[in-house]
Amino acid sequence: MGLPDLPGKLSATIHERLEALAGISDAPDGLERTFLSPALERAKAVVGEWMDSAGLRVFEDRAGNLIGRKDCENPAAPTVACGSHLDTVRNAGRYDGALGVVLGIHAAEELKEVSLPYHLEIVGFSDEEGVRFGSTYLGSRFYAGDEKIPDVVDADGIPLAEVLAAHRPAFAAPPSRTLAAYVEVHIEQGPVLEAESLALGVVSGIAGQTRAKVVLEGKSGHAGTVPMGLRKDALAGAAECVGLVESEARKAAGLVATVGEIFVDSAAGNVIPGRVSFSLDIRDADDSKRRMFVDRLFQNIRAVAVTRGLDCQIGVRMDSAAVACDPELGRHLARLVEKQQGRCPWLASGAGHDAVAVAEAAKTAMLFVRCRAGISHHPEEYALPEDIESAATVLRDFLAELKPGTGAVT
Amino acid sequence: MGLPDLPGKLSATIHERLEALAGISDAPDGLERTFLSPALERAKAVVGEWMDSAGLRVFEDRAGNLIGRKDCENPAAPTVACGSHLDTVRNAGRYDGALGVVLGIHAAEELKEVSLPYHLEIVGFSDEEGVRFGSTYLGSRFYAGDEKIPDVVDADGIPLAEVLAAHRPAFAAPPSRTLAAYVEVHIEQGPVLEAESLALGVVSGIAGQTRAKVVLEGKSGHAGTVPMGLRKDALAGAAECVGLVESEARKAAGLVATVGEIFVDSAAGNVIPGRVSFSLDIRDADDSKRRMFVDRLFQNIRAVAVTRGLDCQIGVRMDSAAVACDPELGRHLARLVEKQQGRCPWLASGAGHDAVAVAEAAKTAMLFVRCRAGISHHPEEYALPEDIESAATVLRDFLAELKPGTGAVT
Repeated sequence: MGLPDLPGKLSATIHERLEALAGISDAPDGLERTFLSPALERAKAVVGEWMDSAGLRVFEDRAGNLIGRKDCENPAAPTVACGSHLDTVRNAGRYDGALGVVLGIHAAEELKEVSLPYHLEIVGFSDEEGVRFGSTYLGSRFYAGDEKIPDVVDADGIPLAEVLAAHRPAFAAPPSRTLAAYVEVHIEQGPVLEAESLALGVVSGIAGQTRAKVVLEGKSGHAGTVPMGLRKDALAGAAECVGLVESEARKAAGLVATVGEIFVDSAAGNVIPGRVSFSLDIRDADDSKRRMFVDRLFQNIRAVAVTRGLDCQIGVRMDSAAVACDPELGRHLARLVEKQQGRCPWLASGAGHDAVAVAEAAKTAMLFVRCRAGISHHPEEYALPEDIESAATVLRDFLAELKPGTGAVT
Repeated sequence: MGLPDLPGKLSATIHERLEALAGISDAPDGLERTFLSPALERAKAVVGEWMDSAGLRVFEDRAGNLIGRKDCENPAAPTVACGSHLDTVRNAGRYDGALGVVLGIHAAEELKEVSLPYHLEIVGFSDEEGVRFGSTYLGSRFYAGDEKIPDVVDADGIPLAEVLAAHRPAFAAPPSRTLAAYVEVHIEQGPVLEAESLALGVVSGIAGQTRAKVVLEGKSGHAGTVPMGLRKDALAGAAECVGLVESEARKAAGLVATVGEIFVDSAAGNVIPGRVSFSLDIRDADDSKRRMFVDRLFQNIRAVAVTRGLDCQIGVRMDSAAVACDPELGRHLARLVEKQQGRCPWLASGAGHDAVAVAEAAKTAMLFVRCRAGISHHPEEYALPEDIESAATVLRDFLAELKPGTGAVT
């Protein structure tokens, strides 16, 4: 395949920049940058310099999003945004978020002398992971025009509104924009591309999600004295439910369902579990399929409880709709991916991304980059340099060819 | 059925004494008496008075066991012991242990004027539950002649040997004895008698027990991004094992098998469990049956792991043999139970008892008393007064008719 037209110098720059960002952390060991934290502000200062050297005008909005803007000759042209997030989880990997920002700046630099039919904004969002306030997409939601400030506090009890009011942006406020499209490069955070031996894939949409907590209550008892036939073992019931979650999800192609937490009240090796709670996390790109699955699963769980004489409480904690990426932008990305690697897989993203928030205001497209063993949110997160360079070429060419609003790309 | 020959005054005394013991606690709320604790010593002083008023000579051995002795006219006669333990678990019920001691003293009082062909010792053992030193049967093992002092320390780091050396018995040291038989009344701590609507049952033996810990290790991952077919979910594997434990135990009549604890490492609702550990507790009165079951279960668990691509570690923590009660003593008890309630069920005890330790030195017999809902080790532990009175009559008549060493009872 090769990377015929990616300058070696800029390719090296991408990796240097990823390494530089990996070193800017609030934690003494491990990578951690949270919303408006000192490390996030230091990272923004560094990224602002990169934007500046790519010929971009640098702005910062009230939510702390960093914006590098390349103005179109036509002031009335729409804006196309490209980026990802600069915040991280705790003990993070170096690619999640940072990769999309670094590749956006790289593309802008390569297109420095090229006249584009839109204003280009490379964005480093200030909050996608939601670590500090437990409220995801603070940065990208604001960028997409949702200026509501959620009524949340951080671990020190400081309200978000107060943190925002105290924040002094290091750069000027950005001009207003008419957002036409948003494109984001991100590591896959899953094993599909690796299993297919492909560097890149295009995202069809971001899955909708149901999260719930199930509590089963039976009867605690002495593990030595209660015969099997007289037991109401809440853990045996929960285990049957975990089995159902897995077997039903395996039948529903594309859907994923997970029990990540299980907890036995007053657990002891010689006590029959009387009360057990467990989590459910169910995701699919098709909302109606997900909801039908969830309804049927809840029925099956309740049936298990009835059969076993257990009480059953199911509390839904989250029900968020799927977000479809724009098919036309996706096909544009896919054509460029095919040029790189022969064929282009389409993936539904099971993880949330800034594109979910920006989709409220613009058509979106996402390019996934293979990551080793699907590992993310962990220091072992890794993407091959050659995969990143393929993504850089695709992104640059995508932006070079894009004609937003016309329905055409060439 | 009725209780034709149980004096009303003594019956009232039984319940007063259970209530008195329930009020002697180391804990400000809830019942708790542990090995040689202040409350245990106060309880022994009170019980010593009851023994004295029943015409017994009161002794205390070096392990803190309280012994009320009715000497036989023939000094060379063997000794028959009857009792249970005076220590409790934390937040205990009032019947576990105390019932057997109080009924023993009651029987001695009723037999005060009767000449028996053996020395009778009513014993309040100082440690059965093992709360303080984590080493069960400290009291009854010593009484049965095992004077080894386990090398253990309590929660304050004080060695058992030091505690024993500092202990000053409140009563004289007991004479030596030749132990012929031991009989104990205890609440069932299970639901079998209640399910059969019977007050009393005779214990055929005390189950042997295997305890083990199983660790399954798969691959952690993002709950949204790893397709079902690419997962190595340790919890899904553990759930399948919990199901096996239950279904296999249901097929093995009389055997009980329990998973009481399950733990997911670094659990989160949106993370596929990578490592899960769970406990196994398997009991049966038939050791070879239990060991065959355990071997097959371990094979099945390993097969689940292999099929799922999980690593599997199984560590056996305990493998204790069953203790059979003496069939002849049991039949003697059963005949008396039949007089009370028409028929007598035989139960294998899944819980351990002082009889396990005493069985090293003497033939043993145990009488179980129905307890409400099988609840034990809990303040809600409850036995009906009329059931206790039935047990008191059976125990008294058992001791009155017993001719140890002759193989005959009448």
